[in-house]
Amino acid sequence: MSNCVLFTIPGNEVLANSLIKLLHAEPGEAIIRHFPDGETYVKVNSNVHEKEAIIVCSLHQPDDKILPLYFLAQTLKEFGAFPVTLVVPYLAYMQQDKRFSNGECISSELFARLLSSFVDKLITIDPHLHRRTSLDEIYSIHTSVLHVSHMVSKWINENIEQPVLIGPDSESEQWVSKVAADANAPYTILEKDFKSNSVVTLSVPQFEEYKKHTPVLVDDIIATGNTMIESIEALKEVGMKAPVCIGIHAVFAELAYDRLIKAGAEKVVTCNTIAHPSNAVYIDELLAQQICKSSFVID
Amino acid sequence: MSNCVLFTIPGNEVLANSLIKLLHAEPGEAIIRHFPDGETYVKVNSNVHEKEAIIVCSLHQPDDKILPLYFLAQTLKEFGAFPVTLVVPYLAYMQQDKRFSNGECISSELFARLLSSFVDKLITIDPHLHRRTSLDEIYSIHTSVLHVSHMVSKWINENIEQPVLIGPDSESEQWVSKVAADANAPYTILEKDFKSNSVVTLSVPQFEEYKKHTPVLVDDIIATGNTMIESIEALKEVGMKAPVCIGIHAVFAELAYDRLIKAGAEKVVTCNTIAHPSNAVYIDELLAQQICKSSFVID
Repeated sequence: MSNCVLFTIPGNEVLANSLIKLLHAEPGEAIIRHFPDGETYVKVNSNVHEKEAIIVCSLHQPDDKILPLYFLAQTLKEFGAFPVTLVVPYLAYMQQDKRFSNGECISSELFARLLSSFVDKLITIDPHLHRRTSLDEIYSIHTSVLHVSHMVSKWINENIEQPVLIGPDSESEQWVSKVAADANAPYTILEKDFKSNSVVTLSVPQFEEYKKHTPVLVDDIIATGNTMIESIEALKEVGMKAPVCIGIHAVFAELAYDRLIKAGAEKVVTCNTIAHPSNAVYIDELLAQQICKSSFVID
Repeated sequence: MSNCVLFTIPGNEVLANSLIKLLHAEPGEAIIRHFPDGETYVKVNSNVHEKEAIIVCSLHQPDDKILPLYFLAQTLKEFGAFPVTLVVPYLAYMQQDKRFSNGECISSELFARLLSSFVDKLITIDPHLHRRTSLDEIYSIHTSVLHVSHMVSKWINENIEQPVLIGPDSESEQWVSKVAADANAPYTILEKDFKSNSVVTLSVPQFEEYKKHTPVLVDDIIATGNTMIESIEALKEVGMKAPVCIGIHAVFAELAYDRLIKAGAEKVVTCNTIAHPSNAVYIDELLAQQICKSSFVID
């Protein structure tokens, strides 16, 4: 891609460099650092006048990433970049999408409004759309949503013998069923036994026939890991093998990754939407293709 | 003040509670906390419909404070609060007020634009106005700027026998001269010897006459403390007493406070624009008066 300069917010260098190579894009030169008083300093060294500027920034642990991103995007605009495209493999603030109780801030809407006010376009991977069906309901800018279920299926096919896919809760069924179909594998969904909230039981009685299968737990975000850990326990109880845990987004709050391993996960696998040693499914080419495609779309 | 609810961003509780008492304001009930994945949760429990909402939030180490502040302010607006007034004793991002070299982000302007987009009014204490003369040059909302030099003078009068005020650099002269005049004390200004940048020398030859005085170093912000520490060294070299160091804003990046004490400061004194054990000059009443006054001003 000519006429396109690609910048990175610190922490996204590996993916950004890969995209630069795939896109034959110009690497954007910028300094982004903190003063000792915690304020952010941004300096753009590349000429971006009348060029598309792409910023790669995954938004896990989002709060202290917003000002550096805002300063960079606005400074690029001041220097004549258009459009300013945010490539945000993991998009934050998708979960508080309604007032679960009175007085709550609907952060997904407010966060969308804020991002929409300073970037022109956004490309993301499998955002946590639950009660909404499209980012367009909350984002006023052009958004592109990419899905990785087929890539997860491919990874499972290539790496797991005789898998059985397991969705940790009913919310995950639609998605797990798709991964399972693409992987040509059976699936089942765990259900909480609501009589005693702490106990999780298999919703299907046929686990006996899967005793020789490798269970593959699949979810979109692994944050605290609690859902996965409960599921691992439930699988243990019915005598299944140690499961492979797959999450798209390696948010891994606190010690989630270590806790998963300790709880008995055979392996933990994630996509590189967030850089982490567990990354095994790579989104670089998918993203590069979409960046090319959507570089002609300006809303 | 009736019809006014006062909220606090965590970390500002002491000042906020004091203002609630002084103003007879309604304490705002809000929950502001973080999820394990780092996202902020905000819930407003008070009724703010058609009331003024005041948010107390000092903005040292500002980057991770912006989203909680933004979410709270916007949620208060959604629930019908007007105006939403930000009481920000220490205002961040005032120092990068021009491009010192090509490509730099002028963060003071961009930060002002961001704050102006989600609060209606702002009250602050001695912002670092250097190349600008008024916040109105960058803030599009109504701003009130309060000054504490007379309170610093009063503290010096009441606590230091035979003080001589010392400004650490020429930039501070205008301000130090005012504090000195109000305190009825002499003053002098240190100047860097630019031949060797690391050496700081007294700009006036009459330090001999101040040998029995207590030097009082005064600056608006103590961040790294480096300027103050250099000044302490310079005073030592010419044989003056250990100085009292006064800063309005106790930003104290890294170990600045400990380093000042170790460098030989007799005492370090700050205003409570940022809560810190060194606070000795209290701005509570000054702020309360201005909140009352400006509650009738809506731009």
